[in-house]
Amino acid sequence: MAADAGDSSFSSSSMEKQFGGFLQQLEQSGNLRDKIRAVAAEIESSTRVMHSCLLLVHESRPIPEVAAKAEAQIEVMKGLYGRLAEILRECPGQYYRYHGDWRTETQTAISMIAFLHWLQMGNLLVHSEVEQKLGLDSSEFGLDIEDYLIGICFMSNELPRYVVNQVTAGDYDCPRKVLAFLTDLHASFRILNLRNDFLRKKFDGMKYDLRRVEEVYYDVKIRGLAPIGDSTATKGPKHKHG
Amino acid sequence: MAADAGDSSFSSSSMEKQFGGFLQQLEQSGNLRDKIRAVAAEIESSTRVMHSCLLLVHESRPIPEVAAKAEAQIEVMKGLYGRLAEILRECPGQYYRYHGDWRTETQTAISMIAFLHWLQMGNLLVHSEVEQKLGLDSSEFGLDIEDYLIGICFMSNELPRYVVNQVTAGDYDCPRKVLAFLTDLHASFRILNLRNDFLRKKFDGMKYDLRRVEEVYYDVKIRGLAPIGDSTATKGPKHKHG
Amino acid sequence: MAADAGDSSFSSSSMEKQFGGFLQQLEQSGNLRDKIRAVAAEIESSTRVMHSCLLLVHESRPIPEVAAKAEAQIEVMKGLYGRLAEILRECPGQYYRYHGDWRTETQTAISMIAFLHWLQMGNLLVHSEVEQKLGLDSSEFGLDIEDYLIGICFMSNELPRYVVNQVTAGDYDCPRKVLAFLTDLHASFRILNLRNDFLRKKFDGMKYDLRRVEEVYYDVKIRGLAPIGDSTATKGPKHKHG
Amino acid sequence: MAADAGDSSFSSSSMEKQFGGFLQQLEQSGNLRDKIRAVAAEIESSTRVMHSCLLLVHESRPIPEVAAKAEAQIEVMKGLYGRLAEILRECPGQYYRYHGDWRTETQTAISMIAFLHWLQMGNLLVHSEVEQKLGLDSSEFGLDIEDYLIGICFMSNELPRYVVNQVTAGDYDCPRKVLAFLTDLHASFRILNLRNDFLRKKFDGMKYDLRRVEEVYYDVKIRGLAPIGDSTATKGPKHKHG
Repeated sequence: MAADAGDSSFSSSSMEKQFGGFLQQLEQSGNLRDKIRAVAAEIESSTRVMHSCLLLVHESRPIPEVAAKAEAQIEVMKGLYGRLAEILRECPGQYYRYHGDWRTETQTAISMIAFLHWLQMGNLLVHSEVEQKLGLDSSEFGLDIEDYLIGICFMSNELPRYVVNQVTAGDYDCPRKVLAFLTDLHASFRILNLRNDFLRKKFDGMKYDLRRVEEVYYDVKIRGLAPIGDSTATKGPKHKHG
Repeated sequence: MAADAGDSSFSSSSMEKQFGGFLQQLEQSGNLRDKIRAVAAEIESSTRVMHSCLLLVHESRPIPEVAAKAEAQIEVMKGLYGRLAEILRECPGQYYRYHGDWRTETQTAISMIAFLHWLQMGNLLVHSEVEQKLGLDSSEFGLDIEDYLIGICFMSNELPRYVVNQVTAGDYDCPRKVLAFLTDLHASFRILNLRNDFLRKKFDGMKYDLRRVEEVYYDVKIRGLAPIGDSTATKGPKHKHG
Repeated sequence: MAADAGDSSFSSSSMEKQFGGFLQQLEQSGNLRDKIRAVAAEIESSTRVMHSCLLLVHESRPIPEVAAKAEAQIEVMKGLYGRLAEILRECPGQYYRYHGDWRTETQTAISMIAFLHWLQMGNLLVHSEVEQKLGLDSSEFGLDIEDYLIGICFMSNELPRYVVNQVTAGDYDCPRKVLAFLTDLHASFRILNLRNDFLRKKFDGMKYDLRRVEEVYYDVKIRGLAPIGDSTATKGPKHKHG
Repeated sequence: MAADAGDSSFSSSSMEKQFGGFLQQLEQSGNLRDKIRAVAAEIESSTRVMHSCLLLVHESRPIPEVAAKAEAQIEVMKGLYGRLAEILRECPGQYYRYHGDWRTETQTAISMIAFLHWLQMGNLLVHSEVEQKLGLDSSEFGLDIEDYLIGICFMSNELPRYVVNQVTAGDYDCPRKVLAFLTDLHASFRILNLRNDFLRKKFDGMKYDLRRVEEVYYDVKIRGLAPIGDSTATKGPKHKHG
């Protein structure tokens, strides 16, 4: 070791200076993170309210009634994502540095919004539509594709329960429609070459949703409860669901 | 559910289109990640070679001899970080998206380079000097502060062993110098308001290094082996080590 | 310890020589393993494509259409197993040394190929037929019996879902046929004296497939949906299914 | 499903025939495995006896006395490995199929035999010497390199305890010798490019043995207990340990 007194004392002073700088930078990023987490907590709170609204569809409450309250939460979230975008504007190029602090909440939000959309429209809410609903702008603060896809997987997990409750309430045509949708969705995911990660695992769970819905459809069909004349059209070779 | 045949078939087609786009984007980021990981593996391999060189200081081999071989690896790493920066240039603003794929290797590299520097100069290699050695440019592809600090904690873990082996080889002044350095370093880290994370945990480990070095210094002093006249100057209130 | 300077220095040199030799041998087997894993990854990728094709039978797509695409993948796999055999030819007698690197992929491949065969022929694809389809030669690079049997267990897991979806689509004779096949298959496995291992566990799962198919057959029979005259012949004492 | 009565009955019979064949083959390999395990259990039992003998060196019993009893076990093991080789001769090319059934026991045996050799000779027992001692023939039933290396890592784990007890018993030159040996051994292992597996993990543990021995050597040196004049020669630049 070549150090002598002079070196060490020089080192000591430049060390202090450097750590003083670090202190500032770590405080800055710590504060930023605190702000982000505060907003993420509000997003989480809003998704919980929205979830409570959506649960009513399992009690066969009319969709328009359910939707009205749920949509109000989308507006709340839009405001919150606006605040997130603003906070991130302070540190350009660091979206992915703090991404972990809002991604779980966002995945849940996507699943709710996509489920509501499906209830209303019967089709998949695409990525650009979610961004629009939440006021997100891909060029600045966009919605990560994997977060969107994980959210869609979570939405799929809601469908078996929905089908069971709809059949209970006397809607015997519901399993056919859900099955058609879920079959298409599952096939679309299979296009993706998912690597071995969290998304792949979530997608693997979708097949259990599919099977459960198939089982419900089976129950309805075998008892002759399904509306007449749907069997050939439902799962025809070209996915035209009549 | 408001879906009728038209919606569903519309959805099916727009679904396919969307997932086709995702396929491309996921492939792109997957390929990028593969490239990054390949370079990170080469960095890891280079740190292992450098580690082998540095281990020789524990056998009391002369520092210049050890340094020559070790420095050659810094040049290798510089080339590799250049390639990383080039790969990341393809996707501006996504440094932190892929950060997890090179950070462990980088922390190890920092620990080696800082240990070598300390062996040669007796003081702390500061952040800007590491960037310079590795050809990193903060405005483009810089060295994350936390990675730097974690690397420094790893370097600290090497010091007790070094002191023990130096004393064994008859260098009784080494504990004093190392203790002065480690005391300053520990004090500098204490300035930082570390939150509850990986870095805090690594820093908490540094106190064991400090204690072990204190014990060795104690052993040397109590046996009258330390060079005469060093006692007051070593740990004075202003960290001036004379 | 009897070591003196001479011994130790002798040892040091013979140590180096020995480890130099090990380096070569470990590199060799490491490279071989890398080659094997690369081919195994391609086999896995091919089974995923084949799986996507086969999933269409659950949507009641005509078997010949499904089979055409799926069979193309068997040809792909045949090529890949040819490459595996060639790689293993470099190291005679070491099939089982590297077996762990392709066995999972092979078990999945077997399950697909046997399922396709069953869809086309209604009977079990025997071990020698799989070897033939994949161009394997038992005297050189054959198909491990346990891998074959585990693959068949995996195939069995597909059958309940297939039956459910066939009944939904109006094929009320399917449960009887599947039940006859699965009953025979289960009985055949019971001949084997399986020890406490992975295969035994997989086989234990087959009974759930059997029960589910029995339940579907029961549903069909109790509702008078099964074709007339099939009841006695189905599960006769000698497994003659008339 | 194209199956009709004929197919199914044909299938049933060819199924039975196939599974009858499997029964025989699985019994055969099951019996072979039982025989192997019985011998492996005897090897394990012999290593336990040998371990008991070797433990006496920690009580500073004279090495020749310890060695005599321990060597008797090597003869026992030689006989057992001869029986293993004979069993494996029944199934050429399947060494690695059953390797898992004797490898743990073999690794332990290697560690004992190499420790005894080191006690007697002060240097590393090389791979070919172990094979010779155990009557193994690489062309037929040899000693896997990784098993040898793992056994050597286990042997290294014995050394810190040995050094501590030798120093306690008054042999102050022991730490120097062990440290020289372990430093060379550690350096030799580092030549190998170990991948991320069991062996790598075991080797990573060797550094703790090394550090512990360094600490003991330090204790001896700092107290002036080490024989005079050994410091420069021990860890000189060319690993000549005088």
